[in-house]
Amino acid sequence: MTDTDQPSGPGSAVVLASGGIDSATTAYEARARGYDLHFFHTSYGQHTESKEYECARAQADELDAAFHHVETDHLARIDGSSLTGESEAVPDAADADEPVPDAADTDETDPNETPSTYVPFRNANLLSMAVAYAEANDCDAVFVGAHSEDHGGYPDCRPRFFEAFQRVVDTGTADDTHIQIQAPFVEASKTDIAVRGRELAVPYELTWSCYRDDEPACGTCDSCARRLNAFQNIGERDPIEYTDRPSHP
Amino acid sequence: MTDTDQPSGPGSAVVLASGGIDSATTAYEARARGYDLHFFHTSYGQHTESKEYECARAQADELDAAFHHVETDHLARIDGSSLTGESEAVPDAADADEPVPDAADTDETDPNETPSTYVPFRNANLLSMAVAYAEANDCDAVFVGAHSEDHGGYPDCRPRFFEAFQRVVDTGTADDTHIQIQAPFVEASKTDIAVRGRELAVPYELTWSCYRDDEPACGTCDSCARRLNAFQNIGERDPIEYTDRPSHP
Repeated sequence: MTDTDQPSGPGSAVVLASGGIDSATTAYEARARGYDLHFFHTSYGQHTESKEYECARAQADELDAAFHHVETDHLARIDGSSLTGESEAVPDAADADEPVPDAADTDETDPNETPSTYVPFRNANLLSMAVAYAEANDCDAVFVGAHSEDHGGYPDCRPRFFEAFQRVVDTGTADDTHIQIQAPFVEASKTDIAVRGRELAVPYELTWSCYRDDEPACGTCDSCARRLNAFQNIGERDPIEYTDRPSHP
Repeated sequence: MTDTDQPSGPGSAVVLASGGIDSATTAYEARARGYDLHFFHTSYGQHTESKEYECARAQADELDAAFHHVETDHLARIDGSSLTGESEAVPDAADADEPVPDAADTDETDPNETPSTYVPFRNANLLSMAVAYAEANDCDAVFVGAHSEDHGGYPDCRPRFFEAFQRVVDTGTADDTHIQIQAPFVEASKTDIAVRGRELAVPYELTWSCYRDDEPACGTCDSCARRLNAFQNIGERDPIEYTDRPSHP
């Protein structure tokens, strides 16, 4: 290594950017670790896509990051989820059999209980796209904002999934390619993420989490409930507007 | 297990169907093993897509199989390969640094040599799509027609890649989902595939392998050269037409 005034950083990283608070915080975490950022946003037919795109784009602009946008219909055409299909309505958190965990409840819930919002093998698809982009653009890492509260219902958010995927990256890319899958919050709760996001000054007004596509956010779907719970736990008001902000918890 | 007159078969299988001889033979192999078949064909921007689609569709019709067609632009937009991008011409086998192996040469060639036709992380992307479809449709297996002559230049065609991907499937799908990745020819040569295909009466007139998009097939690109070599080795004439059929070998 030569002695220079400007030591090189860890390189460049692709961030799977959904527009929500988890991936936004993950992007700021990657930047804090010194990576040049490439936001990678996928339109896969989710109902809330226009809001998600708008937020991911605004976050990339805030971070002065590259922005890569992919559109694909293959997950929506499978129609296995209420997030993409027309056949199921997104349930309210209060009505669902899927309890909203509080911050202390980060253990796995019943591993056999798959929520209706489960998109089959989604993270494998999103990571595969991001790794292909990373390989073609000589990036060093792919960041994903998975966290522990999704371990129960979403198998592709668990540490063992990401460990297995790392092995697929190591064996399935060119021999001189080295890309690290990084899920910095995989053992964290959503409240932990909000705490770290506050430290990093993440602009949460530029995020969207609601599973429904009306503005303002509904405040009652599972995703809104978890988000509001996290802000409640850190003692701050969520900066976005809600149609129906429940007295919480 | 109950005693019935009609024992159930192994179930249903998704076949990654490119339209070429490897995946066609793989589909017939899966059918010979008793699976109900779902052809899964992806248009990802490859130059030869219209011929590939036409052939995959015709094979599915021959086998009375379901046919699922996905269009996505994300691999083409990355533009890392001469198969999808506009910046590189597909090389002739005779001009390339990538020698066409003969049937006996099934060892790995230089693992650092990545051909221009390499699409970054392609098989991870195709398998991820197929597994999502398989999970949503309660299929039991995903078949892929990889073979040993691609081990050198294409890391995502090697046994260790498929073994790693199986672990991603096991960890990343719902806990009551069990999908086997099957690559029946992963240790076979293209000649071995042609031998098996002859046994299975695969209609090779309904296949397309050429990397160029003109009809008839060029006869000189790497893929044509390998295909012609396989037919030469089994002592049969390839039933498709060629612009330039070399005296071989």
